[in-house]
Formats: sequence, structure tokens, C-alpha cells
Amino acid sequence: MYMQNPVFIPGPTNMPEVLRKASDMPTLDHRSPLFGEILRPALAGVKKVLKTETASVFVFPSTGTGGWETAITNTLSPGDRVLAARYGMFSHRWIDMCQRHGLKVDVIESVWGGGAPADRYEEILTADTGHEIKAVLVTHNETATGVKSDIGAIRQAIDAAKHPALLFVDGVSSIASMDFRMDGWAVDIAITGSQKGFMLPAGLAIAAFSAKALEALDSAKLPRTFFDVRDMTKSYANNAYPYTPAVGLLNGLKLSTELLLAEGLENVFARHRRIASGIRAAVRAWGLELCAKDEELYSDTVSAIRTPEGFDATSIVTHAARKYDVAFGVGLGEVAGKVFRIGHLGSLTDVMALSGIATAEMVMVDLGLEITLGSGVAAAQDHYRNVHLSAVQAAA
Amino acid sequence: MYMQNPVFIPGPTNMPEVLRKASDMPTLDHRSPLFGEILRPALAGVKKVLKTETASVFVFPSTGTGGWETAITNTLSPGDRVLAARYGMFSHRWIDMCQRHGLKVDVIESVWGGGAPADRYEEILTADTGHEIKAVLVTHNETATGVKSDIGAIRQAIDAAKHPALLFVDGVSSIASMDFRMDGWAVDIAITGSQKGFMLPAGLAIAAFSAKALEALDSAKLPRTFFDVRDMTKSYANNAYPYTPAVGLLNGLKLSTELLLAEGLENVFARHRRIASGIRAAVRAWGLELCAKDEELYSDTVSAIRTPEGFDATSIVTHAARKYDVAFGVGLGEVAGKVFRIGHLGSLTDVMALSGIATAEMVMVDLGLEITLGSGVAAAQDHYRNVHLSAVQAAA
Amino acid sequence: MYMQNPVFIPGPTNMPEVLRKASDMPTLDHRSPLFGEILRPALAGVKKVLKTETASVFVFPSTGTGGWETAITNTLSPGDRVLAARYGMFSHRWIDMCQRHGLKVDVIESVWGGGAPADRYEEILTADTGHEIKAVLVTHNETATGVKSDIGAIRQAIDAAKHPALLFVDGVSSIASMDFRMDGWAVDIAITGSQKGFMLPAGLAIAAFSAKALEALDSAKLPRTFFDVRDMTKSYANNAYPYTPAVGLLNGLKLSTELLLAEGLENVFARHRRIASGIRAAVRAWGLELCAKDEELYSDTVSAIRTPEGFDATSIVTHAARKYDVAFGVGLGEVAGKVFRIGHLGSLTDVMALSGIATAEMVMVDLGLEITLGSGVAAAQDHYRNVHLSAVQAAA
Amino acid sequence: MYMQNPVFIPGPTNMPEVLRKASDMPTLDHRSPLFGEILRPALAGVKKVLKTETASVFVFPSTGTGGWETAITNTLSPGDRVLAARYGMFSHRWIDMCQRHGLKVDVIESVWGGGAPADRYEEILTADTGHEIKAVLVTHNETATGVKSDIGAIRQAIDAAKHPALLFVDGVSSIASMDFRMDGWAVDIAITGSQKGFMLPAGLAIAAFSAKALEALDSAKLPRTFFDVRDMTKSYANNAYPYTPAVGLLNGLKLSTELLLAEGLENVFARHRRIASGIRAAVRAWGLELCAKDEELYSDTVSAIRTPEGFDATSIVTHAARKYDVAFGVGLGEVAGKVFRIGHLGSLTDVMALSGIATAEMVMVDLGLEITLGSGVAAAQDHYRNVHLSAVQAAA
Repeated sequence: MYMQNPVFIPGPTNMPEVLRKASDMPTLDHRSPLFGEILRPALAGVKKVLKTETASVFVFPSTGTGGWETAITNTLSPGDRVLAARYGMFSHRWIDMCQRHGLKVDVIESVWGGGAPADRYEEILTADTGHEIKAVLVTHNETATGVKSDIGAIRQAIDAAKHPALLFVDGVSSIASMDFRMDGWAVDIAITGSQKGFMLPAGLAIAAFSAKALEALDSAKLPRTFFDVRDMTKSYANNAYPYTPAVGLLNGLKLSTELLLAEGLENVFARHRRIASGIRAAVRAWGLELCAKDEELYSDTVSAIRTPEGFDATSIVTHAARKYDVAFGVGLGEVAGKVFRIGHLGSLTDVMALSGIATAEMVMVDLGLEITLGSGVAAAQDHYRNVHLSAVQAAA
Repeated sequence: MYMQNPVFIPGPTNMPEVLRKASDMPTLDHRSPLFGEILRPALAGVKKVLKTETASVFVFPSTGTGGWETAITNTLSPGDRVLAARYGMFSHRWIDMCQRHGLKVDVIESVWGGGAPADRYEEILTADTGHEIKAVLVTHNETATGVKSDIGAIRQAIDAAKHPALLFVDGVSSIASMDFRMDGWAVDIAITGSQKGFMLPAGLAIAAFSAKALEALDSAKLPRTFFDVRDMTKSYANNAYPYTPAVGLLNGLKLSTELLLAEGLENVFARHRRIASGIRAAVRAWGLELCAKDEELYSDTVSAIRTPEGFDATSIVTHAARKYDVAFGVGLGEVAGKVFRIGHLGSLTDVMALSGIATAEMVMVDLGLEITLGSGVAAAQDHYRNVHLSAVQAAA
Repeated sequence: MYMQNPVFIPGPTNMPEVLRKASDMPTLDHRSPLFGEILRPALAGVKKVLKTETASVFVFPSTGTGGWETAITNTLSPGDRVLAARYGMFSHRWIDMCQRHGLKVDVIESVWGGGAPADRYEEILTADTGHEIKAVLVTHNETATGVKSDIGAIRQAIDAAKHPALLFVDGVSSIASMDFRMDGWAVDIAITGSQKGFMLPAGLAIAAFSAKALEALDSAKLPRTFFDVRDMTKSYANNAYPYTPAVGLLNGLKLSTELLLAEGLENVFARHRRIASGIRAAVRAWGLELCAKDEELYSDTVSAIRTPEGFDATSIVTHAARKYDVAFGVGLGEVAGKVFRIGHLGSLTDVMALSGIATAEMVMVDLGLEITLGSGVAAAQDHYRNVHLSAVQAAA
Repeated sequence: MYMQNPVFIPGPTNMPEVLRKASDMPTLDHRSPLFGEILRPALAGVKKVLKTETASVFVFPSTGTGGWETAITNTLSPGDRVLAARYGMFSHRWIDMCQRHGLKVDVIESVWGGGAPADRYEEILTADTGHEIKAVLVTHNETATGVKSDIGAIRQAIDAAKHPALLFVDGVSSIASMDFRMDGWAVDIAITGSQKGFMLPAGLAIAAFSAKALEALDSAKLPRTFFDVRDMTKSYANNAYPYTPAVGLLNGLKLSTELLLAEGLENVFARHRRIASGIRAAVRAWGLELCAKDEELYSDTVSAIRTPEGFDATSIVTHAARKYDVAFGVGLGEVAGKVFRIGHLGSLTDVMALSGIATAEMVMVDLGLEITLGSGVAAAQDHYRNVHLSAVQAAA
């Protein structure tokens, strides 16, 4: 396995050389002043990526799942009610976590392939005149279905209901790849990880808390120590950690935010949109459909592609790995066997994307699907060369 | 800061080149069969290092603190009683975590510099005829004081009291550097991290559960998801993780155990003992004393050195960092300002140790302590050259 | 430039992660016994790749050009006659080097796109009844034109002429990618570098000398010190170098030969042929032609592709680099502006090759050539999936 | 061998992390504009390190020995006379190279341990009224004996003799570590390598030519192609190379010069002097003597230390490697077995130097020399802490 193709899983993503090198640090004393020169700019950089000036960012040696747990355990108490919609594996898992922590979840069962239903959120919150619901949970980008939800609409739903609940957003597979407006949408807790838009190895849970979310810390009765934001706050005041931090990954995070901000967030988002659009053009050329129901739901970081009835979509992933050494994502949960997924986030170029499309074509033909070799590639090429040309013209 | 001296903090340790390279992996699909070829041998290797044939090992993208939380949340319920002695900052923190999770802790307040008092454990357990105490907590190596406790004696205390409590051992700064016998001592949960004896970056919490500990999973009522051993068990059966694993670090862990086992665990322990003995010889030559009260308490991974009354021990650490770019450890908690610490675990040679001793001497002289330059070095040199000679003779 | 596409230049090639890591070594004393444990297997490995049991291999911290100079300065004297054909930029440069070193070169001017004309070699050697010609030079693979010559035929020509001249072969862009039989073809000096089939950074010149070539060392009057094989021989006897070796690259070379031999040389060659065939299928689908005149001349490591009359082939390379961040090779010398080159040697997969083909298509369409997007990709996909299928079937 | 002590050989030196990472580059097309962004600043940086505004710098994928060959083959013709003193292994080898290239060398046989005798140079040049001597060769720092020669004095000797000969200086183990004034001393060709003061892996020969030296290119009749400065000049005009460059090492060289210039050359030299002085203090404390005859000859990059009559100095190096895994340098040529060498150049700290001194002490005691353990360390510590203190005071 010494020749390495790009991966097309929806994270961990392909990693830029410079970020791998920044993360691969010799040991540095995390109690020395040098550590602060890593931590401070890393936290400040994340804030800019989140488009927030007011939130506090906390980074745990953990993953996105740990971020979810950070959100709920630091603000809620056993028996608290929370509101969440289930429309994919990751929204499901967060709901499951809440239930396992003794929270009462008002679950809005939604279609897998649809987004978070803002109208249903509004209805339920409006009905909750006693304000028993303490938090509203939304998965910004459902990695299982390739669906992006409209967080602004959820915020409007909460406001329309004049409800004081906190808004928690899982941005694990959206943040740093698609537009995310922590302040603009008045998000109270945003969660992400290192291994997606930040293009780093897995190992960091990133949680940003609004001032309102921080106010809940002391009343929250769910037990936590490792994920306790209070300990983190105290330590950060001294540029330190309550336990041993993942120094190398933090150094990578610092550089990652520098790269993203130097490229310009809007350019980063446009790049993801361009690459995703090429992949969607390929899917259309193949005569296949996305799991996402609607164009405005299309995720720019992952596409879940429905295969014909009776065909085992998982075989595409297995075959691609075995024969071509290329990694795609399988369908999960309700859409297991029905979709396969192409991850297209993080460190990816048009050129790399074309190799993923070309591989998917070979695999599908190998497995007997009626796909014309080169058809998806041509559609994506057409998109890439024209969008690029416009960019070049615009710059001229 | 482009010239790198060894660090002499009690972890994260100096890292071998090969382990850094093994940990710095390109992205590998953690849902592919290739991942199993990393995970399985890593887990098997850890078992051998723990000297257990029966325990189950779980590795979380977290740190030792997360390991503590794994131990208590997977086996205990709110209101449960546990027994623990406090004799340093790390035993203190585990107790604090238990209390924050709603456990009732029978705290044995002990002297900092002493070890876990097996007799007191036995007394209390014997008195607990109703077997309300569910778990006994011990810190094998108190990193704050450089004290190694006798886990075998604690096991005997439990057995003498004929008490069914589980035995949880924090081996964060002992495992893989000092003898640890999970089966021999009938330890129920052993906790460690990646950044100490395994010589890797921080980022992995390693928890080993005995069969008896696993039996407690279902009855344990403390909420947990990220650290839930049940999810981990289910996923491991498919060589998978319940969330994104830290693949690179796991690959490093696999190689780390290979290196340790190839060297031979007893040789690894002897190496740590040899290096530690040299450092202790230096301390004696300086006319200073260890925080550890007794020779049998001396830790082979960290030495906490008392400085004269009225002298601020922390200034040694600050000065060494600022003037010589060398990292030592400060005193923590009760011994803050009274001791400074030399970490001597992980990837360290006699030659590197001598540079740490030499630096400490310069620092102490700079700060006005009555130390003879070269005195500690000479004592350590004498030790190193003779122990090495014996080894060479033995091998001949 | 933090996102990295594969390169499609005819060397330096894409490098496998493991070889980069093996080459990136901490400093090791090259006068210590450890160095021999790198040097010996590296030399032994190269011998196996060259399919020789009798030759002596020498590795200089230099490049292929230095290898050419090693060949001529160690065996020839000013005024000596050598025979060489010119059919590309690299055969031209070796001839030029000979002339600059005071050798008389009988140049066979041949068509660029053709191979080494064995019949003309035979004629001239047969006519040289006084055996004034001391060496016969052949470029195995003309990197400028993508032409592979038949070294066995040249050997037959020499033998048919009953001529004692030495046979020097430039195998820089063939060795370790295409079949090379040092003993089978009775090659006297074979030259290559680290940055092609060995998939390493540039920085090593590799020269293998037959026993007959070594006999010429003492009589050779061309001055040399850095490239003197006699100094190298003396030093190698002690696992040492006459000056500072490039230890890291040698360590990389050791591992490279291990990887190549583990894969199996014939499998390595078949892989290059498969990938090259796919690229040639794409060229045919585009309606373009290779510079190489004949099918048996097709190189499996580089394809030089003729563009239509009046089109500046170099613009393809410039445009691909600027717009798509992909590197192809320009035409050199006589075919400058007439061809562009796709390098397909070293560490390359079918999947990566498809991304190069797809990029070339976009570029050509951007520049107004009448190429159908996806056409070349489809042709290559068809080839790759079928050849792979056969391999899978054969293995079953 | 997975635990790495610093090396104490006089090159290749210990390498800073950042330089290793800069040198370990993914493949970059050396014919693309990106390459110029590496090459130009690397060449400009070297000029500043050489303190020249007028010289042209050329960098070959080779080593210092190749640099020597570059100097003589580009400026001289067979039969030309050159003047050189022999006072160590490296001055000897350069003389030997000249002779093997057919030059007539006026050798000034000098004592090993002494420097280049400016008075003898002046005598001979004055006597050469016919100006037959074309070049004067001097080894700035004799790595074999730890002797630094006075290049300014040689320049004065040439000028006093009103002689037009070119001045060639081997600065392999001095440049970037000790003061070197290419313009100030009117050096015509300066030679160095990547693996000493530049702290990089071996693999680059660096040659700087004055305008006067460049004038000799066309008349020079010694054959050369790989080392031909004319080809290099032509290619550099297009930010290119006449053959494949060592791109990664050039990128390392670029960063190395940036680091050196950011630290300040005089600070770099002072740092080498400070570390060297500490080592010399240790030698005095041991009651041993340097090979260098006089204080003004002491090299700041390497110390050759005489051992007592009848003792085999080489055994120190062998024993240190075998027992302590530390690399020192053996004596070479005339002083083989009489001296061992401590290299103290490149990336080295006081703290690392102390570990080398401590190791040497253990080794010498092991081997029966009457050395007091810790004595040299104490002398060096005393030096380091005081020099550092002054620096701290000066900065305050």
C-alpha cells in the first residue's frame, strides 16, 4: 500500500503536506510560554472561520462526538427537554446521545434526504409556552445524506416562537468548507472537528460557546470533567490546559486557519461549491440521483448518490477499495445499501475530483450498472474548465 | 526555536523519530479493512505491555483524564462509594472528578511524598462490611511527587478484606516504563495515555478492563457516550470505531508496542531504572532530597526534587526555559514552589539525561544555590558507565 | 500551493510516502558500522533490479548526468573514439559531453522518434577493423521522444561485428520501470538516477560497471576525482565513501529496491505497461499521434504526444501548470513546440493517470484543439478496468 | 537504534527539524516558475552568508569534493601550476585532486596542527616572477586538525607579491559557522557544502565565483560537463538547471540562509565560538591538548584532541559509538590514532555540547585514561553560564 490515491470519504479528508508537517511537532512543553503562541492564534483563527466575534472557542483532544457531549453536558441537566430533528445518521446519533444522558428529546422524525424542517421547529417551540425546551439541536450538514440545512431558518423559527432555547449546531462536516455564521445566525454552540474542513488528522473536538451558552455552565447538572468548559476557561486564561493538550494538532489548527483565511473564506466556500458542482454534474450525466431531495439542500462537502433499486450500493465502495485502492463512503442507517457517498471536502482539487469520478465510473461499469465510461468525467470537466475560465477572466 | 534540546518534563516525552513517522500518516479510510491491520495489533500489543491475557483494551481519542472518566462512568452510578487516597496532584484530580460525577469518595488523606497506604485501604475495606464501596482507586505513579505505589499491596489489602470492590489503577506515568502486572495484581481497570511510556504525541486515552469490570457496564448509571465502552466493544468486533479514530496515533501505538516488546519489557524497565538511578545519584551529590519519602517509593519515570527552605523551586523551571531552552516540571499543588521535577521516561538515553543534569546544575548555580558544577553529572556518569559495563560484561 | 496534484513529468516522479520518510533521516555517522547496513543492501538491491550478478554498482551524490561522466571518464582517454546515435535530447547531451571531454564521437544522426539503429551500429563497428572505437553509447529510453530502443539488438550488432568495444547504456528513464538486463545484454556500464524508477528525490547517480569495464579503470586517462570509481571501490571495501555520502537517499534507495523486488520486477514492468497503454489509448481517442514512430518503440515511462501543425505544444504545459496546477513536460530540442510529454513512471496508479488524462483534455479544449472531453479518459478507463479484471481473474 | 543522541562529528551536523522538513518536499516540477522561487532566494541567501555582493553562486547536486573539482576544472588547464599548503587530510586531498587532474602543485609541506603559512605563500609567489602559478589554494578550516587559517593573511601575501593568481578557498567546514569574507578577502572561488554550517543533509556542493574567476571559464581546458559553470550560468538565467536539481535540498538551503540571517551572522559565529570555547575549557580541564598549535588557530567548528602517547585515540570513537551510541570523529592521516575529534558546528546548543563532553569523559575513564568525571563538564558549564549571563545582562 505504498502508492496513495486521494481519498473520497467525507472526512478525514486529504491533508495538505504543510498541515501534516505542522501537526507533526517535536515535543514542546505545554506549560511553557511557547504553548500560548500556538493556542492563542489557533483559537482566534477558529473564531474568524466561525464568523464570530463574541463566542468563546474550546478545543478538546477528542472528536466531533466529544464536541456534541461538550455541548449538552455543559449546559443541560438530567430531565431537560431538547428539540431535534432526525434526518440522517448523525442527527440520529446526537439524539441518541441526549437520550443516553437522560435528556428528554422531542424528536421531529423527518425524511432522510430532507433538511431540518424549520416550520416544525417553529410549531413545537411556539407550542412550548412554558419554555421547557432548553436547547434546539440541528445538524448543519448531514454527512449521511449529503444534505445541508438552513440554520438561518431555524434561528428565525426560534425567534418567531419568541423562545429562549439555546441553539446548538453540529457543523462537523460544514464548518470551514461551507458558509457558517455563528454570530449572524445567533448560534449558541457550534461543534466541529479537526479532520474535515480544517484538513487535519482526527483528534480535536472544537466547540464554540456564545455568551448565553456560557451562562448555563453553572446551572448545568450533567456530570462532566474531561469536557468541562469551566476547567478549560480557567486554564485558557493562563494559556494552559487542564490536562495534556494535543500540541501538534493545535499547531496544525493554527496553520489551517491561517491558510483558510489567507485564501479567503468566501473563496474556500466557492472552491468547495465548484468541486461539488462538478461531481453533481457527473451524477446527472450518469442518470443517477442524489439522496438530497432538492437543489438548495445539496451539500458542498459530500454527495450521497442513490443507486438503482435492487443494486447494493455498498458493493461500489468495497469494489473501489479492493480493485482500485480508492475509498468512497458507504450508506449508513436508513440509506445503507441504497447510496454510496463521495466526500469532496477539505484538501481537494478539480484534478483530484476527476480521478474520483473516473474511478466511480469504472467501478459501476465493473458491477454492471449502465453507465457510459467518461460521461461523468466529461460533465465535470466541462464545469471545471468553464468555472475556472470565469475566475481567470474575473481576475484579469 | 529551531534548535531542539531534549525535554525533561514528565510527559509528553521525547519521541523517537520512527514513532513520529508512524503517527504522521496520510489519510486512510478507517472503515476499510486496512484499519483493522492497525487496530488489532495495537490492542494486542498494549495487552502484552500491560501483562494481561484476559483484559479488553479500549483506546479513545482523548488523554489520561478521559481514561479516568472512562473508568468511573462505565462502571459506577451516581451515589456510589469509592475509596481513594490523596497523596499528590493526580490522585487529587481523580478524586475531584469522582466527586463531580456524584460519587461519594472515601478519601484517605496521605502525605505528599508518600505512597498509597495499603494498610489504611485494608482497614476501611474491612470496615465496609456492607460492601458499599464499589471501587478502589490508586495512582500507581504520582507524577506530582515522583512516588511509585505498591499496587500488589493494595490488591492484598482488598483480598485480605475479602472485599468485592473493583480495583482501578491510574498507570498514566508508569505503564510501559515501570513494571505493571494487570493480571498479576488483578487490576480491574488500568488507565494510561499515549504520551508517556509509549513515547507518542498526546491524544490517546488507553483503558483496559478486566472481565469483572466489563460486567459492570450495564448496571452503571453514570451517563456517557463518547467514553462508552459498550459502543467501543460493538465497533471493535468489526475492526471499527463508533466515531472517527485517531488513525495515525493508533499506528504509532502499534509500532510503539512492537519496539517495547522487541527491546523486552524487563529491559525497558531496567533502562528506566538505570537512567533514574543516575539522576538520583546526581540529586544526592547536590546535597538535595527527593520529595519521595523512601527508597522503595522512588519513581523511575519522574523525580521531584526538594529545594532548600525559602527558595522558589519554580524559578528553576522558568530560568531553565528562558536561559537554556530546557523544560523541567514545576511543583504542583501542595508542593508548588517546593520541588522541581525532572521527567526521565520514554525516549531517553543516559547521554540525554546527563545534559538535563548538567543544565539543572547551571540553573541552580545561576540562582544562587550552593551546588558544585559537575558534581551531579559526575555521580550520574559514574553510575551510567558502571551499569553499562556490567551489561556489556553480562552480554559477553 | 498547499494542495498537491500528482506530477506528470518524466521524472522526478511522484514519491511514495514511505520512500520520502526513509530518505528523510536524522544524521547518522557515515563512518560508523550502521552505515554499512544501509550501503550494502542498497547496492545489492540495485544489482537485482539491473538483473546482474557480476557487475559492481557505484552510487554518487550526483545525478544521471554525473553518471554519464562517470562512465566515460573512468574508462576512456582523450582522443578515444566512441560510437553513438543521436535521436533525442538526452542522446544528444551525452554525445556533447563526450566531445567536451575530448573524445571523438562517431555520431549516427537518426530521426527523433526513432530508436537506436542497430544496423548502422553494426555497419560502423564492422568497418572499424582496427578497433579504434572504444565504447558504444546507447540511450535505452529517450525521455525527449518517448522512445525505447532495443539494447539486445545493439549487443547483437556489436557481437556480429566481433568488436571489443564497451557497451554503455543510459537507463536513466528506463531502469526500475522497464525490463533491463545488464547481464543478459552484456552491458558494460549502465547508468541511472534516483528520481525515476526508484521514485526518490533527485541526488543519486547510479553506475554499474561490468568486470570488463572495471579493467579499463587504470588505463583511462580522462581526469576525474569526484567520479573516480577506483576511490569508490577502495572505500566500499570498508563500507565507506571517499567523501560524505547522501546517507538519507541511500537509505531510500535501499527501501526502494526492497519495495520493487517485493512487488516483483515483472509486476513492476507490467504495471508501467498497463498505465502507459491506458495513456496511449487516450492519445488515440484524441486523434493524436505519439512522437515514437512505431509500436515497438513506445516507451512505458513517458509519452511524447505530437500536437497538430501550427499549434504550440508548449502552451499545453504552461496552461496546465497555471490553470490546473498540473505539471506535464515540454518538448525539447528538435521537437520543442511540437510535442508535449506525459510522464508515467514511478509511483503512479491508474487512478492518478486518469486525472492526468482528464487534465490534458481540459487544457487542449481550453486552447482550442478539437478534442472531445472525456474521450481519452473513457479509452483509458476501458483499458484499466479490463486489464485489472484479467489480473483479478488470473489471481482467482 | 530508535533513540537518537546528538552527533559530534564534524559534519554532517545535527539538523534542525525545520530544515529537515523544508528539504523533504513533494515533487515539484523543476521547469516550472515555482522552482525559481526556491532557487533565486537560495542563491541570494548564500551570497549574504559569504559576505559577497559581487560573486556568482552555483549549487551542484554533489558534495564539497565536487566543489573542489568545480573550482579547478572551470578555471585551469592541464599543466597549470597551483600553490597549496598541506597541513591536514583535507588540504592533502585537494592537492591530490589537482595532481590527478594534471596540474603541477607547488606543495608547501606544513605541520599538521599549524595553519596555512602566509609567509611561505608570499615567498613562493614573489619568486614566481613569470606568474606561472595560476591559483592559490587554501583550506580555511582543516577539519582533520581543528585548525583555522587566516585567509586575510593569504590575501595579503598574494597582494604583497603583486601576483595575479586566483585565490581558491575551501570553506566547507567554516562557512556559515565562522566569519568568512568573500569580498573582504577578495576570494576568487569559495567552496562549501550543505551538510556543515548550513545544517542540511549532504548533497549540495556550493561554489561561489568572483568576476575574475568567471573570466577564466573559457580559457580553462580541463574537461568538465557535470561541474561546468558555463552550463549552470546559462540555465540560471532562466531559473533552471542543466540537469535535474536537488529541489528539496535547495529549498532547505533557502530556509537555512533565512534562519542564519535572521539570527544574524555575527550571532551565529558568536554562538559557535561560545560552544567551542566550552569544549576547549573541558579539554584543558582534562589535562589534554588540542592538535591546533596556537590559540588563534583554534577552530570554532571542530576540535581535534590529542590523547596521551601510546594510547589509541581511535578507540575512543569506537567505544563511544558502541557503548553510548554517540558519534565522535577519528583522527585521519598523519594524526590517525593520535587524536579524536569533537565536531561542534551547525545545529548545536550548549546543552547538547555538555552531553558530548560528558560522554567523552565516560569513554576516556572506561578506557583507562586519568580523567576526572565531571571535570570537563564543570569547566564548560562555568563558561556557558557566564557567557550566557553576560548576554542576558547586555540585552537588559
